[in-house]
Amino acid sequence: VTFPVVGVVGGGQLARMLQPPAVALGVRLALLASSPDEAAAQVIPATTVGDEKAYDDLLAFAKSCDVLTFDHEQVPSEHLRGLVEAGIAVRPGPDALVHAQDKGVMRARLFELGIPCPRHRIVEDPDAAASFAAEVVGWPLVLKPVRGGYDGKGVWTIESPADRAIGQPFLAGVDVLAEERVGLVRELSAVVARSPQGQAVAYPVVESFQENGICVEVVAPAPGLSDDVAREAQRIALKIAAELDVVGVLAVELFETPAGGLLVNELAMRPHNTGHWSIDGAVTSQFENHLRAVLDLPLGSPRAVAPWSVMVNVLGGGLEETFSAYRHVLARDPGLKVHWYGKSVRPGRKVGHVTVVGSNLDSARDRARHAAAYLRGDIDE
Amino acid sequence: VTFPVVGVVGGGQLARMLQPPAVALGVRLALLASSPDEAAAQVIPATTVGDEKAYDDLLAFAKSCDVLTFDHEQVPSEHLRGLVEAGIAVRPGPDALVHAQDKGVMRARLFELGIPCPRHRIVEDPDAAASFAAEVVGWPLVLKPVRGGYDGKGVWTIESPADRAIGQPFLAGVDVLAEERVGLVRELSAVVARSPQGQAVAYPVVESFQENGICVEVVAPAPGLSDDVAREAQRIALKIAAELDVVGVLAVELFETPAGGLLVNELAMRPHNTGHWSIDGAVTSQFENHLRAVLDLPLGSPRAVAPWSVMVNVLGGGLEETFSAYRHVLARDPGLKVHWYGKSVRPGRKVGHVTVVGSNLDSARDRARHAAAYLRGDIDE
Repeated sequence: VTFPVVGVVGGGQLARMLQPPAVALGVRLALLASSPDEAAAQVIPATTVGDEKAYDDLLAFAKSCDVLTFDHEQVPSEHLRGLVEAGIAVRPGPDALVHAQDKGVMRARLFELGIPCPRHRIVEDPDAAASFAAEVVGWPLVLKPVRGGYDGKGVWTIESPADRAIGQPFLAGVDVLAEERVGLVRELSAVVARSPQGQAVAYPVVESFQENGICVEVVAPAPGLSDDVAREAQRIALKIAAELDVVGVLAVELFETPAGGLLVNELAMRPHNTGHWSIDGAVTSQFENHLRAVLDLPLGSPRAVAPWSVMVNVLGGGLEETFSAYRHVLARDPGLKVHWYGKSVRPGRKVGHVTVVGSNLDSARDRARHAAAYLRGDIDE
Repeated sequence: VTFPVVGVVGGGQLARMLQPPAVALGVRLALLASSPDEAAAQVIPATTVGDEKAYDDLLAFAKSCDVLTFDHEQVPSEHLRGLVEAGIAVRPGPDALVHAQDKGVMRARLFELGIPCPRHRIVEDPDAAASFAAEVVGWPLVLKPVRGGYDGKGVWTIESPADRAIGQPFLAGVDVLAEERVGLVRELSAVVARSPQGQAVAYPVVESFQENGICVEVVAPAPGLSDDVAREAQRIALKIAAELDVVGVLAVELFETPAGGLLVNELAMRPHNTGHWSIDGAVTSQFENHLRAVLDLPLGSPRAVAPWSVMVNVLGGGLEETFSAYRHVLARDPGLKVHWYGKSVRPGRKVGHVTVVGSNLDSARDRARHAAAYLRGDIDE
């Protein structure tokens, strides 16, 4: 067999969604999962159960693969550097990935590159945080431990110096990034993919909607976004990908201010929730382009296939018997695309998403929201 | 877990291409394959290696599944009847499937239903075949053993009574279907999907192009096809699906005569090569709708997402090092969709296909043909 094996560390839904394009391309996936029941382990035959935090497990797994990539950014940098020294192709590499692992490193590097970010300071204790607010950015203040955290976990908004929650972020045992609360904004995301040779493609810039810090809805492209701002967002993402030598998908989450200014919020170096619409709405999905990129294959067109795509996450809610609910949502909307992750349903957990692709935004949004609400058990018709 | 398991008998590329929509829908596939290296076994974790011609293997496999379906039509009818008696949900059922297994049964049933077919007669020896030609349809005469045969195997065209090949079809040990050679036609295919409840959807009617009896190219929709003839082809396919109680995908291969008349050539009760374009070119692929149908879920929209889709098969040729060839075809055409089956390359064997979706037919056809020829090793730039 002359086809390469892509090793994926982490068995979540992002690894799972790499399997359909791997099947199409004839690329073989191998998976390092923490249990045989994880989302991706259910659909990838070559699954190894191991500890992704243990170097020996990582190395043994990596040696069976042609290239190593990731479902998430939680693998320790020192292990990744060890793998690179052992001759493993790690994509994205540890020197790129650290910018998605450590918000302090990320902010410092973006500052060097002249890329606009919220005003911020790395602080070591609540007093330093309060001083930064009092002296520079005012209240409320946003605090994030520099490592860990995702889906709204690991972000605190502190209303005033009297807010006793100001001590919480420091309990994580790492430095804390203090940032201004950027008001009256909307959130955009610029997803790009980049290959080791430096070829890169930029997806249409999307708008994402959050509830309690968790992405609940994505509209592609971002409604009403000016061409200039869209191009600027793509330019920022492509510049970050190139300067940080990212290989694979990079998602740059941005704030758009009322005046059309852009500030970088977060980076993710893997397929991202704000790119899920591309499975059904783009010529080449972010998952296929992630595979192509880590294999150093030419990238596919990121063009949208229709004027609008709306993706709505399904968060675990009151409904546990999901499969029965399919009958209803699939009957009601023959154009609906349902994606299910094979995870047990727990409140607030991302267990699937739905996408509607079409020429009318309002209709697509209504259809996608309805299906997600029904699958979550929030409505019963 | 409340999600059902769909058991698929046969490990070829059709079973393989069921895996991406199963991953999306959260449906679990189980596979009965003849070897762990088969196309589908590479991508479906729950693979059992067994003999699909052995009733005990079939029954043991079927008992682990919620519903049984097929990669091909080669499973003996008597076994399938036994499974049904044992309480297994077999979809399509044996009484439907026999019409795709036995051309004699198929022709007789279509005649009863008043569906136009080529003039034909079931014959037991070369003399009877020659008499049918001499008395009714003339020469050349088409002969097909009523069972077995696919991809051009199992079809003989006999030019005259002196053609000694006339004895060959009778060596298969089954009756032979003798048919008129319908001249000056093009080949169409009407693919439909039908659920146990009787819901059905019809894909756009396509034109297929054969070389040496093997489908090499499919254009969706069939160029220049009148609306009336397209509707008639869909009506014929939907009628056959309903009357034969087909569950899953049914492909009806048709001859279109110069006057716009339609004659049914063959039936297939599974996802079909003439429907592969739908993976990239339709809202819901034939593979997703096959899964939905056998699970009695509502069917998805079969609508095309663009004016034209062109699918070209990649047959094994001179090129064995396929993966390197990817670099070239993917670089040359970022919109190309490549599908590879994980099979070893042998001359004439279907090892993959490519699809181009777009608004210009000539361009889409040129691009798809070029990529397939390059991947086959016929051209080197």
